[in-house]
Amino acid sequence: MENKIITAGLIIIGDEILSGRTTDQNINFLAKNLAERGINLREVRLVGDVEVEIIFAVNEMRKKFNYIFTSGGIGPTHDDITALAVAKAFDDKLIKNLEAEKILFNHYGRENVNEARLKMAFVPSKAMLLDNPVSSAPGFRIENVFVMAGVPKIFQAMFEAAKKELISGAITKSREIKVNLLEGMIAKDLTDLQTQYPQVLMGSYPFENGTALVFRSTDYEILDKSLEDMVKVLHKIEGNLTIEIS
Amino acid sequence: MENKIITAGLIIIGDEILSGRTTDQNINFLAKNLAERGINLREVRLVGDVEVEIIFAVNEMRKKFNYIFTSGGIGPTHDDITALAVAKAFDDKLIKNLEAEKILFNHYGRENVNEARLKMAFVPSKAMLLDNPVSSAPGFRIENVFVMAGVPKIFQAMFEAAKKELISGAITKSREIKVNLLEGMIAKDLTDLQTQYPQVLMGSYPFENGTALVFRSTDYEILDKSLEDMVKVLHKIEGNLTIEIS
Repeated sequence: MENKIITAGLIIIGDEILSGRTTDQNINFLAKNLAERGINLREVRLVGDVEVEIIFAVNEMRKKFNYIFTSGGIGPTHDDITALAVAKAFDDKLIKNLEAEKILFNHYGRENVNEARLKMAFVPSKAMLLDNPVSSAPGFRIENVFVMAGVPKIFQAMFEAAKKELISGAITKSREIKVNLLEGMIAKDLTDLQTQYPQVLMGSYPFENGTALVFRSTDYEILDKSLEDMVKVLHKIEGNLTIEIS
Repeated sequence: MENKIITAGLIIIGDEILSGRTTDQNINFLAKNLAERGINLREVRLVGDVEVEIIFAVNEMRKKFNYIFTSGGIGPTHDDITALAVAKAFDDKLIKNLEAEKILFNHYGRENVNEARLKMAFVPSKAMLLDNPVSSAPGFRIENVFVMAGVPKIFQAMFEAAKKELISGAITKSREIKVNLLEGMIAKDLTDLQTQYPQVLMGSYPFENGTALVFRSTDYEILDKSLEDMVKVLHKIEGNLTIEIS
């Protein structure tokens, strides 16, 4: 189990991010929290509140990755169409989930659960509810797809519930060298080192007058060894360098 | 021209965002800047530094939208594979662009343009360079695809060059009502109003103890009228409300 590669995708649903009104906060949260569990976030898609687009994204991605998370579109208003779209993606129908209805009754008071709010109790027939201590809008899981809220606080609370159901993979450890050398000065040696250490994923990110070299691997010994080798290589390129290792 | 619907997609390329190391800053910038030009950002995808994934995303999206922007992976290191992937997506090859080579020579000094740096002068044969006053890494355009850098400052500078080539569409105006009523209390009337005004896109976004209603349209008169109607409706739902209109 420990060495398994587990992958995930995220689908963010909502016109508000595509229109520039809102800045996404869920990608980074999910990326970090999945990484902690040894799950690799491999792809993210942002689509609008358009049924065919959601269905297309869900169906294309759920076959590619172990887990899919969706964010947004599960509230009571007309633009909340995620539950129906996900049901259609699975050739399923929405049915009233009695557990979800009970949660709504408890949260709002039975007399305040109007038709719009009751809509939130309708989930695909094959779905299982996710716990959500923050709000009453029920998230759910259907097969490998976790349908969650878009509001960051609620998304995060739902992830707490979802994570209990996730199988962990081998955890990728990350180490970093910051050096005051431009990428173009390091590139050749970095390529050679990458060829020498195929188990280590080496990334290079430029910043003002310097480069951050990020090494990632599930084999921590090899990771440390490749990092040491890189430091040696850097010192050969130029004698007087400022190197920060973390 | 003024009433044309112009659409765009964005492909963000890079392991650093999917791993959680970096938080994306380009989505919101592009969304806002396209909106100002009447161009609708319809979809965003984030993929890793994996050639087949980039090719797949480029080919799926360039047929769906008027313009595609890519961000990331055009530097000198081995993990910078965007130019080659985009060339392959167009069944094209990378060739040395003499103009790009000259820019590199001017920027670094000819003697400092090693093999790794020269790699940045190789772009698809059918591509045209984008101006980039900030750095020497050349962005380029091939058909409807603009290939740009991932570093936000450079991405933004390249967009300045790209935007001269964009055809503008009808500009969507956005108005907003903030009200201290929960979504579930408004949902039915909002649906009715949405049905009455199909030219207006109505979104509803919950916040702590309230709702932001965002109305968007390219028909500004209808937009204002629908907003006024919404305010009347809100006052009917509850007498004593705090309403903020912008």
